[in-house]
Amino acid sequence: MTRLQSTEIKALRAAAPPLPLIPAPPVSSDEYKSPYNRTKPPAKHLDHHFSLESRNFTGSALKKGSSPSGPRKIIPLGTGRPTADYYPWESISLNEASPEPTSKSTTKPNLQSPKEQEKCHSANTITKHGLTYNLSIAMNYGFAHGSAHLLRFITEHVELIHNPPYTDWATFLSCGATAATELAFRIFCNRGDTILAEQYTYPGTLESAALNGINVHGIEMDADGLRADALDEVLSSWDDAQSPRPHVLYTIPTGQNPTGVTQSLERRRAIYDIAEEHDLIIIEDDPYYFLRMGPYQDTQGTNGTDTNQSASEDDEAAQIYHSESIPSYLTLDTSGRVVRLDSASKILAPGLRAGWVTASKQIIDKFTAYQEVSTVAVSGPSQLMLWHLLDENWGHDGFTTWLVHLSREYRWRRDVLLDACNKYLPREAVQWNTPEFGMFLWVKVDWTRHHRLKSLSGLSLEEVGAQIIGLEERVAARALEKGVLVTKGSLFASNQERNGHLHFRMTFAAAEEGDLKEGVRLFAEAVCEEFDLGI
Amino acid sequence: MTRLQSTEIKALRAAAPPLPLIPAPPVSSDEYKSPYNRTKPPAKHLDHHFSLESRNFTGSALKKGSSPSGPRKIIPLGTGRPTADYYPWESISLNEASPEPTSKSTTKPNLQSPKEQEKCHSANTITKHGLTYNLSIAMNYGFAHGSAHLLRFITEHVELIHNPPYTDWATFLSCGATAATELAFRIFCNRGDTILAEQYTYPGTLESAALNGINVHGIEMDADGLRADALDEVLSSWDDAQSPRPHVLYTIPTGQNPTGVTQSLERRRAIYDIAEEHDLIIIEDDPYYFLRMGPYQDTQGTNGTDTNQSASEDDEAAQIYHSESIPSYLTLDTSGRVVRLDSASKILAPGLRAGWVTASKQIIDKFTAYQEVSTVAVSGPSQLMLWHLLDENWGHDGFTTWLVHLSREYRWRRDVLLDACNKYLPREAVQWNTPEFGMFLWVKVDWTRHHRLKSLSGLSLEEVGAQIIGLEERVAARALEKGVLVTKGSLFASNQERNGHLHFRMTFAAAEEGDLKEGVRLFAEAVCEEFDLGI
Repeated sequence: MTRLQSTEIKALRAAAPPLPLIPAPPVSSDEYKSPYNRTKPPAKHLDHHFSLESRNFTGSALKKGSSPSGPRKIIPLGTGRPTADYYPWESISLNEASPEPTSKSTTKPNLQSPKEQEKCHSANTITKHGLTYNLSIAMNYGFAHGSAHLLRFITEHVELIHNPPYTDWATFLSCGATAATELAFRIFCNRGDTILAEQYTYPGTLESAALNGINVHGIEMDADGLRADALDEVLSSWDDAQSPRPHVLYTIPTGQNPTGVTQSLERRRAIYDIAEEHDLIIIEDDPYYFLRMGPYQDTQGTNGTDTNQSASEDDEAAQIYHSESIPSYLTLDTSGRVVRLDSASKILAPGLRAGWVTASKQIIDKFTAYQEVSTVAVSGPSQLMLWHLLDENWGHDGFTTWLVHLSREYRWRRDVLLDACNKYLPREAVQWNTPEFGMFLWVKVDWTRHHRLKSLSGLSLEEVGAQIIGLEERVAARALEKGVLVTKGSLFASNQERNGHLHFRMTFAAAEEGDLKEGVRLFAEAVCEEFDLGI
Repeated sequence: MTRLQSTEIKALRAAAPPLPLIPAPPVSSDEYKSPYNRTKPPAKHLDHHFSLESRNFTGSALKKGSSPSGPRKIIPLGTGRPTADYYPWESISLNEASPEPTSKSTTKPNLQSPKEQEKCHSANTITKHGLTYNLSIAMNYGFAHGSAHLLRFITEHVELIHNPPYTDWATFLSCGATAATELAFRIFCNRGDTILAEQYTYPGTLESAALNGINVHGIEMDADGLRADALDEVLSSWDDAQSPRPHVLYTIPTGQNPTGVTQSLERRRAIYDIAEEHDLIIIEDDPYYFLRMGPYQDTQGTNGTDTNQSASEDDEAAQIYHSESIPSYLTLDTSGRVVRLDSASKILAPGLRAGWVTASKQIIDKFTAYQEVSTVAVSGPSQLMLWHLLDENWGHDGFTTWLVHLSREYRWRRDVLLDACNKYLPREAVQWNTPEFGMFLWVKVDWTRHHRLKSLSGLSLEEVGAQIIGLEERVAARALEKGVLVTKGSLFASNQERNGHLHFRMTFAAAEEGDLKEGVRLFAEAVCEEFDLGI
């Protein structure tokens, strides 16, 4: 199928009407999709998935009437939007330098745009009444979908990367993936519902589900992530008399948090087929999609030379654009049953509190309705910074260059951590896999090796669980005492009561090179001392 | 009672420990309150007001352990917070010029700080690793309460202005008052509950209540706002067998939206007494508190000279600091039953999506718990801009100077609008009051003057309502066709079905001077044409 290429964006934009320069224009990502979408089939009607709360909810009546469109001037006595004359910021200047690589083995990405070279009050300065996206718009109330200028870029990005195979998809800007997950639960679930998720998953999701009265049923995982056969088994044997049949699957398919595993293409297809068969909504929480580290080769003794570095930047960029090997669920989604959550947190900066959601229009309309009566819109300064960086400065190809650069940096960090694990962790009691995406290493400790816990055969599952929790707490406390913070695996267990394993999660996202090594060494010490193993 | 003065802030800060410079430090506004608070009595325990959903909810377990405090260096392998090395912004420069007055009758406020005079890359430039609040902190994940640097200023501000009369109050940064209102409903109300509110109120609140399955019972108003006697009557005659007794009052006490009325001190006391007697939580939504315009004198024929301008800036600043005449509910709140919502939208800029909530610690803990699993924190760029403007540049006295300036600007705008109303609106069919706070003018049109609606005596309340809605739509459509947007009053009716009145809301916040006049003229034309009145 012919699809949008980044080289076509310029012509596409030139042929479109100019972007509106009024406060909170009622825009939709539909306006920024390419004509290629018109030939696709429509999404299925999936309204029956909406919760009782969201079913009839259409958002804010006041906001719908507050920005009349059209070329005529309308005197605004309608909405209480303070005039930009009263915003005490005249301009903002952004210095978007390419960061220096932190790894000796990566090179500085070629992201120097001509604009960057200029001095203060250049094109990097955004003024109150500039001729494009400016402070008078960004600092005023915004439309729930997002500002026209940023939404255009993000919509193009989604089409370039994911190219959803149905026609009426839409994207909107969210206040981050955590906020979007919470909205998704309210849109699709009633209190008392059960959702399906990986057996270990992001604790914020578990807490948000609990808050909304939703049970989480964890599905077992293997080296390819969530097991399709286990998912099918749970659904096929569900006792409808006991509790409502799950109709939502929440999954982190790539560089899963906390396990670091990535679902293969085959696995994704199998899970999508089950979703089709059992009519599931798939919430695809995918913040680590672009952190692509690939296989690991032990760099011990090779003076840190990273042989993976040999792939050219162009090859890696091509992989990001056309990743047939690991497509997103959105790319596979012929029915419109996937709700894809993207986040700026892991690829640009978490403090932006911004991300985007892509799904069928009927679903996105619910997200924007909820946003209208809560956060209203993503912070204007955050949108402005994202737009200026991505659209004015980098463009789509520059963004890809950045993502390739980040992936290399994360590969280097991952390798430093794995090298240290190989060096320090006691293999007789500790296991780990190689994460090929993301920022987490999931470490399994064999608690049966503990001198006092070796034989718990006489105990109930509950009593064993309590013993493991106690052990976990002691290891984590010992590690913290030594000066390293790791995260206890039990926080991630969907099925707390029948977890029965001892895990720790380590991230290579934050610490410096030396600290990554030292952190693993200290953690290894804590384990060895607690388990009475020789170091 | 002795209370904090702005002149004491410097010494208070000097005696406190330095502000933390790590990502997401677990801070609380308690750390920034003055010692005067220690002598106050504690808030009452009001846990019985929490909803079933919020009662046992304490927030994110992962976040609680992710920023260990203390002087020791801890290697961060715990939380997936990307290193600041990967944020593609090196610095941000803010040009916080004092806006020029838009009114000929107001003068430029004296807000020129020495820093403002400097050039690019001066103190107005915030770098990634600067020695105070910087990009490495602001662009990382933030703690739900807010960043230490901004939270300190806001806590001091709340104490200076409102000085809550109990000891364990707390403030946290919200993603705006609309988001905070939604959280308040979830914290206090179960589905099926009824809350009390003004008979006309902010539609976002009505929609948010409906979304959460909450009924709104509108209380009648008079020239002093929500009627205390009507509130008492509703509560005293409540039929508990029919539906759960309301235990939450939502009120906009100052420059009420949409009516523009402000509750007098006497009225506030009477309502607070009823809240004490009937054990109500008061949600005080007060975004217009600082837009203080005072009485109106017809300026027609006096060449626009504003006689109110004679009050000195110092007098007006003193009024803002010690407004015994119109205190907030928070100031009157001896029990800790008030949840005060402040917003940056109307006094700085709506695009920030930021505000603050003040209440007893037990209640604020719920707000932060909800924020932890949804928006996580207010946008870092928004917090950074607020902090730099308020704390680095203006200080508390500068902020007051700004608020006095804004009040004068709004007074001038209000007077332009009222002058135009006096000149153009047909008095035989249209009534309005003088708003002394806020940004809204509420216009009542006597529908019985309509030639076709004069005698609807034979019709039911429902049929009359339908007639009025039709008329309202025609007037608004006619006005829009002429080029002016006004807001239909029915959007604000708490009790839609028994409204029975025809209102329009006009704001003087957004349009330019000439447009304010022309807008009223066009609206008057629309009314006169629809009512067949001579112009």
